[in-house]
Amino acid sequence: MQIKSDGQTYAPKGKASPVCGKGEFPVGVIGLDHGHIFGMSNGLLEAGATLALVYDPDKEKAENYCRRYEGARVARCKEEILENDRIRLIMSAAVPDQRCDLGIAAMEHGKDYFADKPPLITAAELARARDGVRRTKRKYAVYYSERRHVEAAVYAQKLLQEKAIGDLISISGFGPHRLSVGTRPDWFFDRKRYGGILVDLGCHQIEQMLVYAGASNAVIEKSRRGNYKHKEYPEFEDFGDMMLTCENGVAAYARLDWFTPDGLGAWGDGRTLMVGSDGYLEIRKYIDVARDREGDHLYLVNHEGEQHIHAAGQAGFPFFGQLIRDCLDGTDYAYDQEIEFKAIELAIRAQEMATVIK
Amino acid sequence: MQIKSDGQTYAPKGKASPVCGKGEFPVGVIGLDHGHIFGMSNGLLEAGATLALVYDPDKEKAENYCRRYEGARVARCKEEILENDRIRLIMSAAVPDQRCDLGIAAMEHGKDYFADKPPLITAAELARARDGVRRTKRKYAVYYSERRHVEAAVYAQKLLQEKAIGDLISISGFGPHRLSVGTRPDWFFDRKRYGGILVDLGCHQIEQMLVYAGASNAVIEKSRRGNYKHKEYPEFEDFGDMMLTCENGVAAYARLDWFTPDGLGAWGDGRTLMVGSDGYLEIRKYIDVARDREGDHLYLVNHEGEQHIHAAGQAGFPFFGQLIRDCLDGTDYAYDQEIEFKAIELAIRAQEMATVIK
Repeated sequence: MQIKSDGQTYAPKGKASPVCGKGEFPVGVIGLDHGHIFGMSNGLLEAGATLALVYDPDKEKAENYCRRYEGARVARCKEEILENDRIRLIMSAAVPDQRCDLGIAAMEHGKDYFADKPPLITAAELARARDGVRRTKRKYAVYYSERRHVEAAVYAQKLLQEKAIGDLISISGFGPHRLSVGTRPDWFFDRKRYGGILVDLGCHQIEQMLVYAGASNAVIEKSRRGNYKHKEYPEFEDFGDMMLTCENGVAAYARLDWFTPDGLGAWGDGRTLMVGSDGYLEIRKYIDVARDREGDHLYLVNHEGEQHIHAAGQAGFPFFGQLIRDCLDGTDYAYDQEIEFKAIELAIRAQEMATVIK
Repeated sequence: MQIKSDGQTYAPKGKASPVCGKGEFPVGVIGLDHGHIFGMSNGLLEAGATLALVYDPDKEKAENYCRRYEGARVARCKEEILENDRIRLIMSAAVPDQRCDLGIAAMEHGKDYFADKPPLITAAELARARDGVRRTKRKYAVYYSERRHVEAAVYAQKLLQEKAIGDLISISGFGPHRLSVGTRPDWFFDRKRYGGILVDLGCHQIEQMLVYAGASNAVIEKSRRGNYKHKEYPEFEDFGDMMLTCENGVAAYARLDWFTPDGLGAWGDGRTLMVGSDGYLEIRKYIDVARDREGDHLYLVNHEGEQHIHAAGQAGFPFFGQLIRDCLDGTDYAYDQEIEFKAIELAIRAQEMATVIK
C-alpha cells in the first residue's frame, strides 16, 4: 500500500518490450536519494536495458536496490561506474543539487545521462549542462515522469496529434502531492538542495505544457510560491502556481502543492485539463476520485460526444525504448534536448520571479 | 433539450419554499435581453415573490415572459414599473451596459434592485452605483448564479464552513460556456456593451472566490484575454483567465472560455477545485462528464477518505428567500453589498489590465 499511496516510492510498471539485445545496453546507477529511481529503472529495464552497477554513499540503499533488480551489482565508488567502458548510460536520483555535476561527469566519460527531475536547480548549472552537451555530444535526458510515465498522458498526446479537440488553446495542470512529512530526508526541506516547489514539481508541468502545445518556448506571466502550513520548515514550500503563455499563444497554468490528504487512495490527484477549439480533454492520472483507484483516465469531449477512455495498458511508455535506441543509434526520437532544458530553465525562472505569498 | 444545453436559456428550478405571504413581494422586470432572467424569476418566484409587471422594448419578448409566468402583466413602459408603488424590487437582464442606469433609477424610485451579472461594466458606473446605494440605502443585488443558483456550490460553502478540508489555500474556477454563435444578438459580440470576457464571466468567479475564501478583497496578479477562433467578431473574446491573491492569502485562478463543444450534454462543464490544509473539494456544477448528465456533483477528499456527494435537492437556493426577507426586513443576510460590488470591481480591473493574447 505504501508503494501505491506515496509519491516517493510510486514506480509505474509496464509491459516488457525490449528494443535491444540482452546485455546490449548496460546502465549504471549513481545516487538513490529519491524513490523515482525505481520508476526510471522499471522503464529502462522493461525496454531492454541491463541494470549493471549501482552506487550510493549509503551502502544499504545500494544493496536494497540490487535485491530489487536481479543482476545489479553494488559498485565500490562512483568512479567504478563512470570509468566502466561497458556502461552506456548513467542514471541518477541523487539529491537535486548534485544531479548536474554528475551528469557532466557522465557525459565527459562518454556516457549518456538520465536524471530524475529536476535535472538541475540553478541557471548556472543549466549553462554548464548545456555546454556539456555541446562539448560531448552526449544526452542529458530527464525523467519527466508525469507525462512520460503515465499511460493516460501518453495517450492524450496521440489524441492531440489526431486533433481530437481541434487546435489547443489552454492547458491547466495540477500536481498535488502527499507530503508524508515524517518519511522525508533533511534535504527535502532545504530549498538550496531541492530547488523550490516551482523547480522541483513545476518542471514536470512546463515540460508537459511545451510538448502538448508543440511550443519550444514560453513567457512566464506570473508565478507564486508559499509555505502555508509548514512553518517549522522555513525553507520548504507547500504551494506554488504559475501562468505561462507559449510562443504559439497556448495559455497555460499550473498549480503544485503538498496537501494530498491521507484519505486519498493515491499519492496525488494529478490532473491536466486541455481546452481546444473543438473539444476538451481531461487527464486524471493516478486516480478517478471516488470512482476508481486505478489511474490513467481520460475524459474526451468534442462535437461527437463525451467519452471516458481508460488508457491503462493501451498506450505503454514509449519513451524508454526510444531513449535506448537513440543512445545506441545516435538519433533523437525520445525527446528534444532543447525542450528538455527549456522546461527546467523556465521552472528556475518561475521560481526566481515568484511572488512569495505570506 | 435547447434549454438544457445552452447557457442562454439555462434556468435552474428548485422547490417552492415561500418566505413571505402571497402578494407581499411584487417584483417588476425591466429588460429581457439575457435568458438569465428566467433563472432569476424562478428563484424569486419559488421564494414567494409575485412577478407582477414586465417591460421590454421588444413587446413579443415581454408577452412570452407573461405566458411563462402566470399572473405577470406587460407594462407599457419602464416608468409604469418604476413608478408603481406596490413594486418592491426591480430585476433586470437588460444588455449589460444598461444595467447600472436602470439600477440607479430603481433605487431612486425607492425600490431594491436585482441585476443579472455583470451588474455593470465600467469603473465609472461602479462609482455611480456605489453612490446610489449610499444615497438611497437601497439594495443592488446581483445574480451571481454560478455560486448562488447551483446546489452543489451552495453545499460546498457548508462544507467549507464545517472545515471539511481544513483552512482554504487555493481555488481554481473553470467557466467554459457554449457559444451557439448563430443564436446570439449583436450586443453579445460588442465589448463596449458586454464588458469583455473577464467582466462578463469573470465576475462570477471572483464573487465565488471572495465568498469561499471569506475575503473582502484581493490583488489581481495577472490576467489574460484573447480571441483565438472568432476573428469575424473582432470585439469578442473567447478566452480569458486570471490569477488573484485574496487579502487572507488564498491563491486563486479562474479560466473562462466559449469553447464548450456540441457533444457535451450541458452548456458548460463548470468546475471549482479547492485545496485546503486538510483535504480538497471539487464541484462539477452542470454535468459529471461521461458519467451523469445531471449536475450538482461534489467530490470531497480529506483524511477520512474520498466521497462523492450528489447535492441536487439537498442544499436548495437560500439566496432568493434571504434576499426577499432582507428587502422586507431591512436586513443583510443574503449578501454583503461591498462584496457584491468588489467582485465586479476586480473583474473590471482584471479586464483593463489583461495582456491580450495574439
